[in-house]
Amino acid sequence: MTRRQTLHDIPTPALVLDLDVLERNIRAMAEKISRLGASLRPHVKTHKCIEIGRRQLAAGARGITASTLVEARDFADHGFDDITWAFPVVTGRLDEVVALAKRVTFRVVVDSQAALDALAAAARAAGVTIHTWLKVDCGYHRVGVDPCAPASLELVRRLGSTPGVAFDGILTHAGHGYSAKTHDELKRIAGEERTVMLEFAARCRDAGLEVPAISIGSTPTISVVENLDGVTEVRPGNYVFYDWMQVANGVCRAEDVAVTVLSTVISHQPGSDHAVVDAGALAMSKDLGPADPTRSRGLGPVLKGLAGQAALERVSLRSVSQEHGVVAGGSAADVEGRFAVGERIRIVPNHSCLTAAMFDEYVVARGEDVQDRWKIWRGR
Amino acid sequence: MTRRQTLHDIPTPALVLDLDVLERNIRAMAEKISRLGASLRPHVKTHKCIEIGRRQLAAGARGITASTLVEARDFADHGFDDITWAFPVVTGRLDEVVALAKRVTFRVVVDSQAALDALAAAARAAGVTIHTWLKVDCGYHRVGVDPCAPASLELVRRLGSTPGVAFDGILTHAGHGYSAKTHDELKRIAGEERTVMLEFAARCRDAGLEVPAISIGSTPTISVVENLDGVTEVRPGNYVFYDWMQVANGVCRAEDVAVTVLSTVISHQPGSDHAVVDAGALAMSKDLGPADPTRSRGLGPVLKGLAGQAALERVSLRSVSQEHGVVAGGSAADVEGRFAVGERIRIVPNHSCLTAAMFDEYVVARGEDVQDRWKIWRGR
Repeated sequence: MTRRQTLHDIPTPALVLDLDVLERNIRAMAEKISRLGASLRPHVKTHKCIEIGRRQLAAGARGITASTLVEARDFADHGFDDITWAFPVVTGRLDEVVALAKRVTFRVVVDSQAALDALAAAARAAGVTIHTWLKVDCGYHRVGVDPCAPASLELVRRLGSTPGVAFDGILTHAGHGYSAKTHDELKRIAGEERTVMLEFAARCRDAGLEVPAISIGSTPTISVVENLDGVTEVRPGNYVFYDWMQVANGVCRAEDVAVTVLSTVISHQPGSDHAVVDAGALAMSKDLGPADPTRSRGLGPVLKGLAGQAALERVSLRSVSQEHGVVAGGSAADVEGRFAVGERIRIVPNHSCLTAAMFDEYVVARGEDVQDRWKIWRGR
Repeated sequence: MTRRQTLHDIPTPALVLDLDVLERNIRAMAEKISRLGASLRPHVKTHKCIEIGRRQLAAGARGITASTLVEARDFADHGFDDITWAFPVVTGRLDEVVALAKRVTFRVVVDSQAALDALAAAARAAGVTIHTWLKVDCGYHRVGVDPCAPASLELVRRLGSTPGVAFDGILTHAGHGYSAKTHDELKRIAGEERTVMLEFAARCRDAGLEVPAISIGSTPTISVVENLDGVTEVRPGNYVFYDWMQVANGVCRAEDVAVTVLSTVISHQPGSDHAVVDAGALAMSKDLGPADPTRSRGLGPVLKGLAGQAALERVSLRSVSQEHGVVAGGSAADVEGRFAVGERIRIVPNHSCLTAAMFDEYVVARGEDVQDRWKIWRGR
């Protein structure tokens, strides 16, 4: 480059990553989890980025968590050697699981006898032993076994005794923390994420079954937790970036959000109550957050400057179609005449994980200065 | 391949394209538009696929429409030589516009004096003349000039007289057709999409201003239109695939939907009212369609067979998180015991344009037989 590149030079839409904020978020979470005596195994589905994963390991993370086999493979290809695929194993893709287990310490998750049987058979046929967690439902009611059901104890027994499988322990994710309506409700959910697992482990041990480890975690619950006694590891992901949903839920401050979408005003008609930018659904995603009408804040606040975090009062990204984003305020006066065609703004994403998955790279910046480009491994 | 590959062999999630349905949709739209005496310039943002664009041209389409510069470049790289970027030109990317205008017949859109000035200056500096349409608002109220405002006539005058710019005509998109609550409302919107443009063109001509062409179109409005007199070209996109939103709006039949997401059941707990599949937000997108609670049908019906279109009654993809999809019914009995871990199902996407943009390729099939893989050019 013949001259310093800044956010004024980048084609839009672009996903800007504030390196100062990222580094602060990585450090803060690593310090908190270390202080509470657990291991940190961050979920890389938020960033899908080798450079960020390496910074998390350097800050003390012990292994990573992935959401897809493609993600796991991409990170394995770049030297990450301890990966948990925290998703009930897809039984039609066990050949890929076996291939990964031959290359790295690869850990998978089951929540059914059918999946365990298929996994163990594939492992034995390939002559490998596959690290396996039992997914437990701590109240989210998406996947995972009922910790109170006798059949769940039976599954633990089989996990500990089935050739081809090494039982790693029990794992959960309190995803319902994202829908907590108050800070107290979030704290209750966070407490239960741990206690449900400790109680299930105690029942297992009472039945003579070993539970080698307990893995829990989500960014909202880990943000409020102050006691991880008995927990082996936690798996938050979103904390590297945070987002507007986390700000609205009181999980972080506005200045902790590390990613914004840089976009250009492409249309603002005279007298109109809205402006249109080149950041639509394929830049922001269409994630409106939990379906709670009292929290309908649109898709993220609008920042006028290209550095710093001062949001325009009342103005947000109100709706998106495929490539168009509509910026509007509480009234026409919030917007009218305040946006010029060609002007650049930044938008704080409502859900940074899904926004990052819409882009091929991060434009890595400190303030307005572009420092680097980091690839987003978003293949499927 | 040593043996015939079928949908039973494909890793999930996968985007399956039914070639028979695709070919029928392409042919039907081409025949209708030809019969009505207009040109067809299909929007490739729906499919982002070279092979499909070529089939559209072979069926009689005159050029294509693109939603981003990257899309336009990808198609130009594959021999498409007449491309309209139907998006208000991003003034920070005029160097890319000029570069495309030097390679192919590249047509852009403006709806402001500021964008026109910037475009014309860039064109003159590069020694090219750029084909330019004026975007008109026919009632969608997203972008486009007010056809009744005197300033819009003035913009037409300048478009026709500014060096560096060749005025192609006036262009609109009745995107509000997607929110029509009744078939009659959709027909009214479709009628207005044409008449607003004819009336604006008449006012221009009364003022001594030439309007070389009129371009309109969306899949819903074109599906109900029976009169295109005075219209030069139409630009529907979604019709190649259709989707569940179009079925629900009466635009097409269920058997006209050409794409489905092949997925695997990964979790279904005993007694649970839902099953979970490996098709989440990064497979389906989070597009719920128009925000009309009376049409809350979830994210698409569930098909049990791997070929054909018979949907399970009352069962649909109810919600998605990043990689998980929750399948549920009207009551627990619709689901309980009807899904086995490892079983494959297909899901009809609610919005096929956004779903296609989540994948890297189409698994092209006739019935259950895989015929080919076609790349989806989803770079940004």
